Amino acid sequence: MAARQGVIARYAARLPITPATPRITLFEGETPSIPAPRLCAEMGLGSLHLKFEGLNPTGSFKDRGMVVAVARALEDGSAALVCASTGNTSASAAAYGARFGLRTLVVIPSGRISVGKLVQAQVHGAEILAIDGNFDVALSAVRSLAAELPVTLVNSVNPHRIEGQKTAAFEIVDDLGDAPEVVAIPVGNAGNITAYWRGFREYFAEGLCSRLPRMIGAQAAGAAPLVRGRPVADPDTVATAIRIGNPASWQGAIDARDQSEGAILAVDDADILVAQRDLAMVEGVFCEPASAASLAVLRAAVRDRLVAPGTAALCVLTGNGLKDLAVASEGLRAPVLVASDAASIAAALGLR
Amino acid sequence: MAARQGVIARYAARLPITPATPRITLFEGETPSIPAPRLCAEMGLGSLHLKFEGLNPTGSFKDRGMVVAVARALEDGSAALVCASTGNTSASAAAYGARFGLRTLVVIPSGRISVGKLVQAQVHGAEILAIDGNFDVALSAVRSLAAELPVTLVNSVNPHRIEGQKTAAFEIVDDLGDAPEVVAIPVGNAGNITAYWRGFREYFAEGLCSRLPRMIGAQAAGAAPLVRGRPVADPDTVATAIRIGNPASWQGAIDARDQSEGAILAVDDADILVAQRDLAMVEGVFCEPASAASLAVLRAAVRDRLVAPGTAALCVLTGNGLKDLAVASEGLRAPVLVASDAASIAAALGLR
Repeated sequence: MAARQGVIARYAARLPITPATPRITLFEGETPSIPAPRLCAEMGLGSLHLKFEGLNPTGSFKDRGMVVAVARALEDGSAALVCASTGNTSASAAAYGARFGLRTLVVIPSGRISVGKLVQAQVHGAEILAIDGNFDVALSAVRSLAAELPVTLVNSVNPHRIEGQKTAAFEIVDDLGDAPEVVAIPVGNAGNITAYWRGFREYFAEGLCSRLPRMIGAQAAGAAPLVRGRPVADPDTVATAIRIGNPASWQGAIDARDQSEGAILAVDDADILVAQRDLAMVEGVFCEPASAASLAVLRAAVRDRLVAPGTAALCVLTGNGLKDLAVASEGLRAPVLVASDAASIAAALGLR
Repeated sequence: MAARQGVIARYAARLPITPATPRITLFEGETPSIPAPRLCAEMGLGSLHLKFEGLNPTGSFKDRGMVVAVARALEDGSAALVCASTGNTSASAAAYGARFGLRTLVVIPSGRISVGKLVQAQVHGAEILAIDGNFDVALSAVRSLAAELPVTLVNSVNPHRIEGQKTAAFEIVDDLGDAPEVVAIPVGNAGNITAYWRGFREYFAEGLCSRLPRMIGAQAAGAAPLVRGRPVADPDTVATAIRIGNPASWQGAIDARDQSEGAILAVDDADILVAQRDLAMVEGVFCEPASAASLAVLRAAVRDRLVAPGTAALCVLTGNGLKDLAVASEGLRAPVLVASDAASIAAALGLR
């Protein structure tokens, strides 16, 4: 294997890159599609892979689009990156901003945000402002800011973000030799399902894959506007990365669902947490709760016969479990205290 | 770039693998050597790369050796993995144990360990026992256990661990085209400096690199037995991953230092934390405190003229910063509260 190249160097011809765009990278992308043989057998699938995006530089898929957005910001002479985000987007923006010499400005709703979620962005030097108002007000404020000043909005309304994110679909085909028959993916702001569907269609149009996958989107039951057909005023779920009531890429998600003959389904938080635990305990892959929604929805789709036995399936795991150890630590048991001789330890473990 | 292969598939001929050893992987290794141009300029080096091992499946370099140790455990019909560890080793063992169907048993000193450090191992289903006594007693207990029962000790005294870890040196040469002139690396239990030195020597012996690097080891000032020449009874440092008073691979570290004409130096916790912050804020790479000791020691070596201007250097960043957000969050400021209109936000940011 050659050294990693990063998203822009590897897929420049398929991205909104000009001759003047700097070829920057933090070596995002090129994440593994990890076989999940035991979960595959449990569901009676033909194959199952986990596209583990938690191994990106800042621990989530956001880096794929961020590198493209930041490269274009540099090309355009932007003075700063701005976003309204408390999670993976702000962490990614801050890392790329730090590395490539741009200020990163993050606007958040006052009083509703755990400071812990912002540590990663702050570590990379992001400047944080809190405003009175909810997330929609914060997003509106940064949109206005970007309209008036030479700063670059890097929320997913930035079209370069989705362009960069589609490279994950390219990699799946490049690595597995064809598109899966079914791709299960978490849906929050809906940029990622839009991006994957675009990526698969582009490869299919050029004959680089023999089929298009059915896209099965996962929303949390308490934050399922696309399932219900209308925005949710007060979205609530343990899966913070998909706690979105009014997705920016609403139409993209609907198009992906309908054009692919797929589905977007709601899954309960309890099923999401079981899926997260099973991925860690059965396949050895530790992802964010939101990521595990993809396994939860695939299980539901198999159970409801939306996905047939023998299908070649893939779950997109969007972020690293290390990002949210607090949720993962709930319910874990304290260590058992035993005497320090080997016989006592063996007995405690039932080893003799 | 072809799909990732993992350490065993890529380097089987150079590892203690038999025809009967299962070719397992969680797609460990193949981590990027990230250029650090701004820190390079600061120190007047010829080049500087960061081998970012935080992008391994469980977030640290331990996965490289663990996959080899677990493959051999499977080949030998072992019933379980056992270790005395509260950090990266237990997390890695637990993930590979979970995926490949082996119990993982972790023995820890009672009362001295933050449960938070064990979350990652527990997420992957490790069984935790606490014993009365310190870390040495815990290690002694698991050694006895492994001597008496068909379980596999996966602390770094397991020789397959160091064999797997040497693949990081292979990758550096494969990616950069030659060995660096200087490799700066954190030294705790000293298995990793031993492994890197072995890897470079093997490649050099076969003519795959034109030179051998000088190995510059970093110990924390409060846990510097190799610098002081004697074990430290009560090691203390913010860099928990190198908080070791009596390194298991003591002689390997001394050999690496002396044979390479290198050095092992102590760095203060304050300098480690500054280095961690600078890596995140200047190069966009967020690593564990222990990892940042490699940058701290390289700075000291340049300052003390142990490393000359123009040198081609590399820092090994052993683990992901997401593993220890508590340390990273100390001293971060609360967000500034502003009105939500764009003009107020711009003014607060000094943008007009």
